Amino acid sequence: MTMLTQRQWIYRQQPVGQISADHYELVEQQLSTALGEQEVLIESAYFSVDPYMRIGQSSKPTYDTEAHPLNTVQQGAVVARVLASNAPGYAAGDWVQAYSGWQTHARLHASGLKRIDPELAPVTTALGVLGMPGRTAWFGLTESGRPHAGEMVVVSGAAGAVGSLVVQFAKRHGARVLGIAGGPAKCAWLRDTLGADWAIDYKPHAGADTLGAEIKALTGGVDVYFDNVGGMATDAVIPLINRRARIVICGQISQYGGGLETPELGPRLLHHMLYQRATIQGMLARDYLHRMDEMVRIVAPWVKAGEIVFEETVIDGFEQLPAALNSLFTGDHRGKLLVRA
Amino acid sequence: MTMLTQRQWIYRQQPVGQISADHYELVEQQLSTALGEQEVLIESAYFSVDPYMRIGQSSKPTYDTEAHPLNTVQQGAVVARVLASNAPGYAAGDWVQAYSGWQTHARLHASGLKRIDPELAPVTTALGVLGMPGRTAWFGLTESGRPHAGEMVVVSGAAGAVGSLVVQFAKRHGARVLGIAGGPAKCAWLRDTLGADWAIDYKPHAGADTLGAEIKALTGGVDVYFDNVGGMATDAVIPLINRRARIVICGQISQYGGGLETPELGPRLLHHMLYQRATIQGMLARDYLHRMDEMVRIVAPWVKAGEIVFEETVIDGFEQLPAALNSLFTGDHRGKLLVRA
Repeated sequence: MTMLTQRQWIYRQQPVGQISADHYELVEQQLSTALGEQEVLIESAYFSVDPYMRIGQSSKPTYDTEAHPLNTVQQGAVVARVLASNAPGYAAGDWVQAYSGWQTHARLHASGLKRIDPELAPVTTALGVLGMPGRTAWFGLTESGRPHAGEMVVVSGAAGAVGSLVVQFAKRHGARVLGIAGGPAKCAWLRDTLGADWAIDYKPHAGADTLGAEIKALTGGVDVYFDNVGGMATDAVIPLINRRARIVICGQISQYGGGLETPELGPRLLHHMLYQRATIQGMLARDYLHRMDEMVRIVAPWVKAGEIVFEETVIDGFEQLPAALNSLFTGDHRGKLLVRA
Repeated sequence: MTMLTQRQWIYRQQPVGQISADHYELVEQQLSTALGEQEVLIESAYFSVDPYMRIGQSSKPTYDTEAHPLNTVQQGAVVARVLASNAPGYAAGDWVQAYSGWQTHARLHASGLKRIDPELAPVTTALGVLGMPGRTAWFGLTESGRPHAGEMVVVSGAAGAVGSLVVQFAKRHGARVLGIAGGPAKCAWLRDTLGADWAIDYKPHAGADTLGAEIKALTGGVDVYFDNVGGMATDAVIPLINRRARIVICGQISQYGGGLETPELGPRLLHHMLYQRATIQGMLARDYLHRMDEMVRIVAPWVKAGEIVFEETVIDGFEQLPAALNSLFTGDHRGKLLVRA
């Protein structure tokens, strides 16, 4: 029986604040390459790190009743190549997407794989614009945000994997778009490369009042707020909403470093919802998994035609995975953050 | 030219916290009874006091761009009798509804009047179950709350003009209903007279944690939260929402005593919207004014058949109006609060 060396990041300890390598253990073991019926052996090429992973580590119930189990491989999506197949339809060399988590190799039932067409777009887009982040951006914007031409759309976390797509999708709807991001480099990129009408660096702002004043001066008022961040950005935007504004809660990454268990305090602002008869709606990508084809039908041609910027920040080295996850909340990456094996 | 003595409550000073007679002046003057074409002279019989009046006194923009103007008669709805008419279709003795505010008499153009049929229901219902509060309860529940049979509905301010109707309307939808109110008497009334499945007195609770634990023990989780109050009640309910819960922001009366200008702090809870893909929607009665007939078509037969409890708390004396308004936020009234001339 042939064996190969498999490395895995095992999730060992629940983080209280930030996540780090201390919460994981890197293990190495031998994996048999013998395949059962319908089994496929894959070698992971790219690993996705996503903010939702930190939510899943909360000690309180979140979108799942149970937290990510300890002492198991960190769950997550990968792009991989087939090394060997005992399933019809898969052959060595094929590119596939799997949810096999932070391990270098895996033997999986073919039903857990999704074929990637490398002719359509770079294979990494299966983890980005043509994958979960793209689905989140597309359906969050179209189903919950519902922007119209001429409306004002504000996006927090605008330089991130989801935010950077929302900015571009909203522009294609004919809306005017303001992105909020951290640092002048991201803001310049939002304006110059993604086509945002305005970009605001939140970092020089000590509080929501001055941030809000800057947003108000530029937009006059907000029709759609696509929120990936929460906290100060949201405090700044809510008092600026227009009549029947739609607020999409896609993420609250400013709150993930412990705030999910013990919420931090912020101003009570729900009376603005009343004044403006506005809507706040939470959304998760998983609810639109069965509608992936709708998104791909529209977005894939834009990707193929080079009309969508789908920036990727790639970190090299399987051993970098925990640090890469933490850098989602602290780092300077633009677009989709990936780890290359 | 005949004259009559007209008394008016003039709104003189913006309140910072609670509203009181200090913010008004009671004036008396002579009103000519000579009627122009299409004019009607009315004598107010019942005055409505409503929480929205306090919002209109906020120094910041609310649902209206401008605050209620100073040095004018306090605006508000009344039920009145026609004393004399120079408009076809109106005759002395007719019951009408008008938006003539806190004054004993008024000369109005007939287009500002709405006829009340005293055969249909007591005339005061035009300010309650068949008026603005009824419209708020009906459309807030059916358009924003959208309860289904078997779902759990929680109503804050459940003994108030709107809340007491929402409790009953939700029961008629086949939902199970928990009312939150202040004091054991209101809670007993909610259970024994209105048919709520459960009622919780929020007053013994020092904070949202214990209130939330009691709600969770009774309901297991919340599908629709109809919120008239905000603050602690909302902090207690949001962590208990079920998948795709709908939160209706109809009022935030716990925040009206100054909190609208300088919001108080509360826990950040928007991540729960994400987890449960839930919706918060603000609503105002005015948006459904043109759909009044839809509500009346359904609710008036229930009123006529005696199937709806539409409790009224009536305070006697025009001079009591400012105190009555304040007592909305501090008092022990049940159902609709009215002042009788």
